[in-house]
Amino acid sequence: MIFSTVSEFGGPDVLRTQSRPDPEPGVHEVLIRVRAAGVNRADLLQREGRYPPPPGAPAWPGLEVAGVVSAVGSGVTSWAVGDEVCALLAGGGYADAVTVHEDLVLPVPAGLTWEEAGGLVEAACTVWSNLQAADARPGETLLVQGGSGGVGHLAIQIAVAAGMRVLATAGGPERVSRCEVLGAVGIDHREGEVSATVRELGGADVILDVLGAGALEDNLRCLRPDGRLLVIGMQRGARGELDLGRLLSLRARVIGTTLRARPHDQKAAIVRSVREDVWPWIPSQVRPVVHAAVPLERAGDAHRLLESGEVFGKVVLTPPVPA
Amino acid sequence: MIFSTVSEFGGPDVLRTQSRPDPEPGVHEVLIRVRAAGVNRADLLQREGRYPPPPGAPAWPGLEVAGVVSAVGSGVTSWAVGDEVCALLAGGGYADAVTVHEDLVLPVPAGLTWEEAGGLVEAACTVWSNLQAADARPGETLLVQGGSGGVGHLAIQIAVAAGMRVLATAGGPERVSRCEVLGAVGIDHREGEVSATVRELGGADVILDVLGAGALEDNLRCLRPDGRLLVIGMQRGARGELDLGRLLSLRARVIGTTLRARPHDQKAAIVRSVREDVWPWIPSQVRPVVHAAVPLERAGDAHRLLESGEVFGKVVLTPPVPA
Repeated sequence: MIFSTVSEFGGPDVLRTQSRPDPEPGVHEVLIRVRAAGVNRADLLQREGRYPPPPGAPAWPGLEVAGVVSAVGSGVTSWAVGDEVCALLAGGGYADAVTVHEDLVLPVPAGLTWEEAGGLVEAACTVWSNLQAADARPGETLLVQGGSGGVGHLAIQIAVAAGMRVLATAGGPERVSRCEVLGAVGIDHREGEVSATVRELGGADVILDVLGAGALEDNLRCLRPDGRLLVIGMQRGARGELDLGRLLSLRARVIGTTLRARPHDQKAAIVRSVREDVWPWIPSQVRPVVHAAVPLERAGDAHRLLESGEVFGKVVLTPPVPA
Repeated sequence: MIFSTVSEFGGPDVLRTQSRPDPEPGVHEVLIRVRAAGVNRADLLQREGRYPPPPGAPAWPGLEVAGVVSAVGSGVTSWAVGDEVCALLAGGGYADAVTVHEDLVLPVPAGLTWEEAGGLVEAACTVWSNLQAADARPGETLLVQGGSGGVGHLAIQIAVAAGMRVLATAGGPERVSRCEVLGAVGIDHREGEVSATVRELGGADVILDVLGAGALEDNLRCLRPDGRLLVIGMQRGARGELDLGRLLSLRARVIGTTLRARPHDQKAAIVRSVREDVWPWIPSQVRPVVHAAVPLERAGDAHRLLESGEVFGKVVLTPPVPA
């Protein structure tokens, strides 16, 4: 197998392609021959040494893949060699082969390309588990902070499919307009304080936020009574002042989550729920937007692209197609 | 009727006894002849002008009473004249008579004195609605920050009755020991950082906190993965720095609530749930501790007592007993 790993902590150039023997699938594991692997912001942090892989995970990055099952370990009952699948990983997706527990595997939804399927699982699981954590309900208003991102652009579509009204922020008229095509009311965050616009639009019951500390104060101003702020990223800092007076008077919640470090049982439950509730919406109502597919050997270019801030949707890596 | 109202914003001396004609119970309201009224920290804030009564509530303080139904308005089906009841109020409890919607009325639990019943409802509803908001489960560990307070001392007992393990903070060995008598593992907050002790004890799944900003950082350090911090008071400040990095890595939640300003339907649902789930524990497993019963005409003394920080449990006001 070949894989792209972090030779030392640093910029995109530290990603290096290496090779080693294929892994063997363990008990209840499948071996997947990877056709596309999603690139996530967490991978950038891991490359910089700020988000070490959890114990037991491969050292190289990659939280999601799509590909073909090429071997199954003992005890596997759900999957067979030849199945076309997506999988949620704790790491190791930047490769042409990966092993994963059968509970974290889903079928590739009909009608998706490999590239679309490769960048789907991590975002879908993140969005759906967060909407569930917030007990988000049809008819409520969701604000997606960062609607053009890999998670955000999918959050818009999933929430619309679930019957929510969606507001989404993005930078500049072109990206705002693309959020609107996906079903959101677009808000250009370059045109002033987001909360002023959101409040004019009636406020948000739920906020899905990748910005963190830098948006904490303004996010609280966006919330309606009984509102829930879901923080899943910290692109604008990790420590911020929390206005508890407002939190109490709104009866609001700040909920922080990550997906990667969850215990197996939680991840398996999320995957089951996504398969049951979200998969039927694909591709008619929910479809990942692939901004670019980059060869695995040029993973550093994919990181540079994500860091440019100019991506709409997902960037995926494609390993060399097996002979 | 007589009532004790805030003549101008300020210290305990601004509370003045006045009289006016009895109110008439409106549609779905009962008139209660008050035998005891609970004093809460929110009343101190209201007296200082920092917590104005919600629209429609009486101008004078008081969030809970116990007494006898002396008249019923049209449409009332649940209560009759002569019933001994407790009630949850948005204000107006510092009086010998009060009207309240029948949905917010509960029977006085058998075996309680008027004083015990008068200081019960606000705290019981606060504790129970918060444990529900946190989805607290039997076997989990609850940390009560402020175990000797009116809410805290009842939270210990309710959580123990619900099958939780309870840790409780208090100031000084005597108050710590009283928390332990109620079923908690006591922690003296004068003896060093609370989180160090809580972590030695395995951490907290849920925290019920009346301190606010000043304890925010240390509370987050107490939490276990998937932990929930319930902030219901701000005795140590309203704005504090939130460590989102820790929040995300713990998959934790900060939940702020108040009871008084909730919409009627939410309050009615809370009262129903308290009557169903908590009332059966009274008095065998849950019993309010009345620190002092103060005549209504000396409401200022009751406030001074609460402000002294030396109260364990509840302070209640007792109007002149009707002839």
